[in-house]
Amino acid sequence: MARRSVIAIVGAGRDIEPAVSNARKLGRLIAENGWVLITGGRDAGVMKAANDGAKEGSDSLTIGILPDRDAEVSPAIDVAIVTETGEARNNIIVLSADVIVACGVDGAGTASEVALAIKNGKPVILLGANGSAKQFFQGISGDGVHTAESPEEALRLIKDLCVAA
Amino acid sequence: MARRSVIAIVGAGRDIEPAVSNARKLGRLIAENGWVLITGGRDAGVMKAANDGAKEGSDSLTIGILPDRDAEVSPAIDVAIVTETGEARNNIIVLSADVIVACGVDGAGTASEVALAIKNGKPVILLGANGSAKQFFQGISGDGVHTAESPEEALRLIKDLCVAA
Amino acid sequence: MARRSVIAIVGAGRDIEPAVSNARKLGRLIAENGWVLITGGRDAGVMKAANDGAKEGSDSLTIGILPDRDAEVSPAIDVAIVTETGEARNNIIVLSADVIVACGVDGAGTASEVALAIKNGKPVILLGANGSAKQFFQGISGDGVHTAESPEEALRLIKDLCVAA
Amino acid sequence: MARRSVIAIVGAGRDIEPAVSNARKLGRLIAENGWVLITGGRDAGVMKAANDGAKEGSDSLTIGILPDRDAEVSPAIDVAIVTETGEARNNIIVLSADVIVACGVDGAGTASEVALAIKNGKPVILLGANGSAKQFFQGISGDGVHTAESPEEALRLIKDLCVAA
Repeated sequence: MARRSVIAIVGAGRDIEPAVSNARKLGRLIAENGWVLITGGRDAGVMKAANDGAKEGSDSLTIGILPDRDAEVSPAIDVAIVTETGEARNNIIVLSADVIVACGVDGAGTASEVALAIKNGKPVILLGANGSAKQFFQGISGDGVHTAESPEEALRLIKDLCVAA
Repeated sequence: MARRSVIAIVGAGRDIEPAVSNARKLGRLIAENGWVLITGGRDAGVMKAANDGAKEGSDSLTIGILPDRDAEVSPAIDVAIVTETGEARNNIIVLSADVIVACGVDGAGTASEVALAIKNGKPVILLGANGSAKQFFQGISGDGVHTAESPEEALRLIKDLCVAA
Repeated sequence: MARRSVIAIVGAGRDIEPAVSNARKLGRLIAENGWVLITGGRDAGVMKAANDGAKEGSDSLTIGILPDRDAEVSPAIDVAIVTETGEARNNIIVLSADVIVACGVDGAGTASEVALAIKNGKPVILLGANGSAKQFFQGISGDGVHTAESPEEALRLIKDLCVAA
Repeated sequence: MARRSVIAIVGAGRDIEPAVSNARKLGRLIAENGWVLITGGRDAGVMKAANDGAKEGSDSLTIGILPDRDAEVSPAIDVAIVTETGEARNNIIVLSADVIVACGVDGAGTASEVALAIKNGKPVILLGANGSAKQFFQGISGDGVHTAESPEEALRLIKDLCVAA
């Protein structure tokens, strides 16, 4: 009887590489480590890839935080939390996770999630982000924003951050 | 790979009988049927009892939808979703459940959950409610509000409603 | 330079009497007393009537707290606050008002607003409510729920409650 | 009887120059043009300066969208909307405005507001932003992000955008 660690993977709802491949690999690694995976839950892009990856592992638990009732839910989601709060559900994703990993910062939704994570004092890992995203977010954050270039590097950071948390 | 059924138990954050005993028994029955239990997540009253009951069953999954970061979380919660939306988190609880069971309608928070469930077209079971609660909610609802006098009767209603849903 | 008093009128989004007539008269009285009127903002039922009534007075200020971007807004609304929180916007209405007046409790949305007001410790006036609504809400509340049978009686209660607040 | 135009000023809750001076001047210009000013409502930094500036003009209307009940409200706020949604209230600010002006992007809260505005398709003006903020947000946005170096330039952009909207 103990709270399980929760890792969020966020990213664009479109098929952008290497974001989608990174999300799939990291989703699997999260499941294999016994952590709960939380995403925006939609059946698209990084969200879909992360949940598909988790289901390649055994005993995964995937929770989707949905913007509204009509959202198309990834079939790889075990439990859907329907928030009916639109983009404000991004705040719930970051508040519910021990660590947030952004697979690319290719759109405004992901940028809002990274910004809200920093604002709420949650550790963020930018995985495969471009230079301007890294420069901007590390500029407005103190030491809460980390960077990784591979899912394996992100996994090592998650382990460090969960122990530190 | 299929979405799991989710049952919400709602009720007062105080130790009121028979609400707390009903919540504990029903929480166990929900876990034994393989459903996910969702509650308001706090370590008090009906919420605590429902999660404790679920943990008496094997393979339970308990998700708490918390009002804010500082809420004291029941130790029987597996995954905490931190909404930072105060009492508006009640809307997220009812939207995320296939069926909502109110163990007593002894306070305004529970009354808001029953009302929001009706408003959102979700089936509600009033378990052990008093006469004025039954009369009021059945008056403003069409056929969406059901009543039960025991956890076993509530369980039969849940099975009917989940098949019908 | 001082915060203005804010009165919320809540009620069904359908044309039910005497709720709609009461809302129109009370909306006018609120404007004439220099208070800000806050409603759910939609162009229907009690919301529409309250805002129309306020615009019969001079110098009225009408603010609508909308559930989503696509809601049809009453043309008598001066400022629309778009919450994109669905029914959870009811919590914002009651938290933003000094006093909440329910013109009838004829539907589940209004019932949720009354319940959320009580839960948040805000004074509520049930104007023209039926017996089962009065009995239920006065049963779960201590002394936070008041009743009135006419807009004029509601006005006197508002004045008492605003001075007391 | 017509909806009034609403302009949001967002920025850090700290006294950073030139953000605070720009906010004060632009707040006054917004009031003089008969628009409603919407901010995060707190008595600090850019929010406080914008509302103080609006009150230097005549017939201003200042609405604050507060994160929670305990927030310290600027005394220059006419109407406080209490959302109890924490940082998710940033989504309500941007959804309720016709144009959003960020006076500096010096913190994560402001970054989330700019990102949420882009995500929701709302026009944004970055006033006095540094190079990395401009580069990042213009990179993830199409043509929805504008830049200005003075309150007067921002005013001209607002007029263009409100006519175009």
